[in-house]
Amino acid sequence: MILPKSNRLTPAQLAEVTAIVEPFGCGLQPIVGAVRTIYAIVGDERDELMITRIEGLDYIERVDRIQSPHKLMDRRSDLASHRITLGSVTLGEELLVIAGQCTIDPKNPNFLYETAHAVKEAGANALRGGVWKPRTNPYSFQGDVKSLDILMEAHRRTGLPVDAEVMDETQLHLALDAGVHMLQVGARNALNYSLLRAIGRAVADRKTIVLLKRGLHMGPISEFISAAEYIVSFGNPNVLLCPRGTAPALDGYRNHPDESITPLLKEKTWAPVVVDPSHSVGKASYVPACALAAVAYGADGLCIEAHVQPSKGIGDDPKQALTPEVLGETIRQARQLWTLRQPVKTS
Amino acid sequence: MILPKSNRLTPAQLAEVTAIVEPFGCGLQPIVGAVRTIYAIVGDERDELMITRIEGLDYIERVDRIQSPHKLMDRRSDLASHRITLGSVTLGEELLVIAGQCTIDPKNPNFLYETAHAVKEAGANALRGGVWKPRTNPYSFQGDVKSLDILMEAHRRTGLPVDAEVMDETQLHLALDAGVHMLQVGARNALNYSLLRAIGRAVADRKTIVLLKRGLHMGPISEFISAAEYIVSFGNPNVLLCPRGTAPALDGYRNHPDESITPLLKEKTWAPVVVDPSHSVGKASYVPACALAAVAYGADGLCIEAHVQPSKGIGDDPKQALTPEVLGETIRQARQLWTLRQPVKTS
Amino acid sequence: MILPKSNRLTPAQLAEVTAIVEPFGCGLQPIVGAVRTIYAIVGDERDELMITRIEGLDYIERVDRIQSPHKLMDRRSDLASHRITLGSVTLGEELLVIAGQCTIDPKNPNFLYETAHAVKEAGANALRGGVWKPRTNPYSFQGDVKSLDILMEAHRRTGLPVDAEVMDETQLHLALDAGVHMLQVGARNALNYSLLRAIGRAVADRKTIVLLKRGLHMGPISEFISAAEYIVSFGNPNVLLCPRGTAPALDGYRNHPDESITPLLKEKTWAPVVVDPSHSVGKASYVPACALAAVAYGADGLCIEAHVQPSKGIGDDPKQALTPEVLGETIRQARQLWTLRQPVKTS
Amino acid sequence: MILPKSNRLTPAQLAEVTAIVEPFGCGLQPIVGAVRTIYAIVGDERDELMITRIEGLDYIERVDRIQSPHKLMDRRSDLASHRITLGSVTLGEELLVIAGQCTIDPKNPNFLYETAHAVKEAGANALRGGVWKPRTNPYSFQGDVKSLDILMEAHRRTGLPVDAEVMDETQLHLALDAGVHMLQVGARNALNYSLLRAIGRAVADRKTIVLLKRGLHMGPISEFISAAEYIVSFGNPNVLLCPRGTAPALDGYRNHPDESITPLLKEKTWAPVVVDPSHSVGKASYVPACALAAVAYGADGLCIEAHVQPSKGIGDDPKQALTPEVLGETIRQARQLWTLRQPVKTS
Repeated sequence: MILPKSNRLTPAQLAEVTAIVEPFGCGLQPIVGAVRTIYAIVGDERDELMITRIEGLDYIERVDRIQSPHKLMDRRSDLASHRITLGSVTLGEELLVIAGQCTIDPKNPNFLYETAHAVKEAGANALRGGVWKPRTNPYSFQGDVKSLDILMEAHRRTGLPVDAEVMDETQLHLALDAGVHMLQVGARNALNYSLLRAIGRAVADRKTIVLLKRGLHMGPISEFISAAEYIVSFGNPNVLLCPRGTAPALDGYRNHPDESITPLLKEKTWAPVVVDPSHSVGKASYVPACALAAVAYGADGLCIEAHVQPSKGIGDDPKQALTPEVLGETIRQARQLWTLRQPVKTS
Repeated sequence: MILPKSNRLTPAQLAEVTAIVEPFGCGLQPIVGAVRTIYAIVGDERDELMITRIEGLDYIERVDRIQSPHKLMDRRSDLASHRITLGSVTLGEELLVIAGQCTIDPKNPNFLYETAHAVKEAGANALRGGVWKPRTNPYSFQGDVKSLDILMEAHRRTGLPVDAEVMDETQLHLALDAGVHMLQVGARNALNYSLLRAIGRAVADRKTIVLLKRGLHMGPISEFISAAEYIVSFGNPNVLLCPRGTAPALDGYRNHPDESITPLLKEKTWAPVVVDPSHSVGKASYVPACALAAVAYGADGLCIEAHVQPSKGIGDDPKQALTPEVLGETIRQARQLWTLRQPVKTS
Repeated sequence: MILPKSNRLTPAQLAEVTAIVEPFGCGLQPIVGAVRTIYAIVGDERDELMITRIEGLDYIERVDRIQSPHKLMDRRSDLASHRITLGSVTLGEELLVIAGQCTIDPKNPNFLYETAHAVKEAGANALRGGVWKPRTNPYSFQGDVKSLDILMEAHRRTGLPVDAEVMDETQLHLALDAGVHMLQVGARNALNYSLLRAIGRAVADRKTIVLLKRGLHMGPISEFISAAEYIVSFGNPNVLLCPRGTAPALDGYRNHPDESITPLLKEKTWAPVVVDPSHSVGKASYVPACALAAVAYGADGLCIEAHVQPSKGIGDDPKQALTPEVLGETIRQARQLWTLRQPVKTS
Repeated sequence: MILPKSNRLTPAQLAEVTAIVEPFGCGLQPIVGAVRTIYAIVGDERDELMITRIEGLDYIERVDRIQSPHKLMDRRSDLASHRITLGSVTLGEELLVIAGQCTIDPKNPNFLYETAHAVKEAGANALRGGVWKPRTNPYSFQGDVKSLDILMEAHRRTGLPVDAEVMDETQLHLALDAGVHMLQVGARNALNYSLLRAIGRAVADRKTIVLLKRGLHMGPISEFISAAEYIVSFGNPNVLLCPRGTAPALDGYRNHPDESITPLLKEKTWAPVVVDPSHSVGKASYVPACALAAVAYGADGLCIEAHVQPSKGIGDDPKQALTPEVLGETIRQARQLWTLRQPVKTS
């Protein structure tokens, strides 16, 4: 829908806009209102270049898109009936809980093994464990490939499927070769389209699940969904969307919690939403409340940091990780709320 | 705590800073670190002018405050044991629910009377009804003093205590004279200190409860609490803090929901928190989830818009108001969650 | 323009929407596109209630407005040719500079008298001086009515027109009775519609100029312009729009500088833009750069804090106020840039 | 500096904190104030894990850092005297202007050749040309390696040094092998630490200049500078910092312009600042004002999109690109302002 700055396009302007849209297989349909005439684009309006060219004209106020830019991620696409299963949980049927350490300590593998057992006991369905870590400070510990073996050993000991964040193609292939069950793309790489494409290509056949974190900035929702479309367009629809807080932070938290975006995502896409309360708030004592809020908003799952001895952890664990006891109580309450909220409907 | 830009103050600089703090009854204590010396302010550091003068010096990097600026609102003040009661509900003991119309329609008083009965039936403890309305557009309906009589009549018919937003001193005195049980300060007036002082003065003796909405901007939490201190400083501690979403909006909502601020408020102040999910999200279908999230975060109450026939309402009601059925179900679930979440603690 | 969630409205939905718009004198015109049908509102679409009622329908995705909500402030209104003059400066013909103290010190009137002479000497066209001050902390100095006499005396001594911020009706009438030449509405009262109406009414005949600061939050531009429409709708078009930074602050400034909003304002309204760099950045050393940036963006004027002895000032002066020397150099450069930038045009 | 929640640490708490800091070679020094005791960390406080562990303690309110986390980028490091030269321009001595197309059209290389000649004529010092493009929509044109040859040919024809954005290691090595003179890291990859490390390693010996764009989110300034530290830590100090607007956008621009961050950057780091006004505002007609504002704030350079026929461009060019005439006039004014603003100082 094209809105000119004046009340209608002059014939010369109309000819110019028409000359822009026709090479893209589109046409224009004027809509004559009482005061103002606007112009519908008839045809597939999704080409960014066509839109950009119209927006570039001095006499155009704005161009409103009417079609969704996401073919496959759209709630009305054929993929809407696709179901994703991780371990024993089918998303949407019960609440998925992924729990584990922010960062695996390669010198103390027992912490992860004990944490793995403890989170399983507490009710978690999958184990997270950071092998490589994005760090603001270049001189901080950046992770160690040895941790990948520790992670897989934790899987063998507990049977829990495991999740690892990858930040580049090298890590991606190491993680896939090791056999991780879920790949994670972090908030800092949420718009790293080269990585998203590399992942899409690499998991096209294996159908490995990808957990895609929301970027740190308050971009439009369609940008988040489009990032997932990059992966899915290669043929693997096993994508989970993960809000984890945005910047600037709410005064006192690590980020501005954004679990409230869940219903907005679900209006536009069929993809399950798994909220990360740990990074949203950034401090263990706030995590249980945020986890419950995510379930209140309709999240399909939670991704929570936990550690058998948080103060001995590395990475963000000393601040963010829940003890197994608190994790267990949080999962118990979250599952009760999951059951409770099912019938809430507005006519 | 004063941090100079260089590793320490020169003797001349130290003398200059000392000359600033002494008239305010304070002194300086150098803290000699390995690389850098910083300077503690010894004494009552709360005077803004003293801080501003130090911050104005070219060689000062920043001044970090250590004391809370809120004497009375502080969680450690004597008021911390104060309990606020509205109608039959003592805040903190059970979940308070205020419900009712955004804007009373002075031509159709029956809508409010029916809504009042319906929200009481649905489990609400108090009735809200907008008499005057802040409107972006100066040509929109701005409210009608006749609606005040309608509101009081609704109180008489149902026994529910009633709440009205006031935007200036004239409205304040009309509302108090009519006998409303709770005054509301809207988000647009959250930093209108003249109004806050006028209210503080007017309710000092009557002890009328004041519901103070959070401002539309993402200011620091202390600014919100200080606004309440304006009222409380006149002698009436019956203040409720009301997050209701901030700008810029999350893409698709009316505002950016901010119920997550609740635990941060509770760390700093004893005042109860009553969340308004209706303005946070701005659309009826999203309100129940937001209400539950508020309870998940520890809110002491909810302020929800409801209407017996939302589509016939004026103001924001056609978009935001819940039907009595949805309100009832939301209250039921919120109260269950209130009970459920009590024992969640982190060591 | 009404966009349904599905590809077109059902006959029953179409009838429901029609029944909503008809009482407002409007009709619907379907616009049949290749995939989707949307619906233009034919008639005056500015009534908020009509729009709200349509937005309240479950099957509507959104309603896009096509008409400007500002009748009088609109760049295409008859007022577009109105010129505003303060002292010897006609806005738009030369750069207006308002300078002076944040807060007048009632115990030391000579500071203002000396500052008034100094800013005149430095090239300023008008004098600002805070009589009453909005303060976050209720226990801080809130201003003193005696300062109003000091301000008017400074006017008599220098001939400079004077500007005072008012925060309520009492202050408004005191200031007008004293004879101030310009009223200022602060950022915290930018959406205080009761005050805006009171000012509009009070200055309708006197035609006193009103400087309206932008609110602290990042609301849409139309909200800012609508606030001015409140005043102008009473008959006085002498309104100046004043960006002064928004929250959250850029890391290290008092606010997030927003002089860049100037071209956006000028596309929508004829009202002159006077930027306040002092509150935007909050520290004297950053103010000259911000002032120049405002002129680069096309500002018609600047409102700058200055003091003959900043460190002796009260309010924000010790941090924000320029010395007369720096003010003079800033004005000189700003006026050179004003001349320089005139011919920059994009075809 | 450690601030406990209570007025002082208990002996047991003090022992616990001491046990945390000692393995990192640090100690604690209590600073006894009138009401409250706080604790200085004596030693190198830069280890994130040590800080995280202290922050993880329940009785700690916050830990304030006193040392800069950036060893090499710090304004006080030995690198502060390093000068960066691109083509004939030494940063800091005259205004650097990089200009050219958002995206090279591989089917129409003449557009770039003509644009290269035109921007050189208009006064630009270097040529930009997008070879690969980050695109929100996975189905949009993503760039073509053939454009790299076109870019180098434009260099040979004009002698202008050329700049190309790279998004992954493959592109990085292709660009370096082709001989580009400057690499660009885009806003979406601003926190892609794997890419930053790969670049740092690849340019350690060649000393290729890297233009690092600021991320889309409003993160703290230190995060931006730390991203540059990643590159510089490998041994090449030729890094330029490039603000280019952040999200959420100012209502009507592509982003929220952030050239105002320049003075804040210059307080913390020695690295030159080159502002991109084209992405900040996103529309050609707003670009010249934003470019001047950047110079007003002290930018050392500008990176501007230009095209001989903007409407025929691909990528963002139809909206953002200046014509050579407008570019020339903008450069002329920017250079005049650069000269004008030199003596503005605040005492």
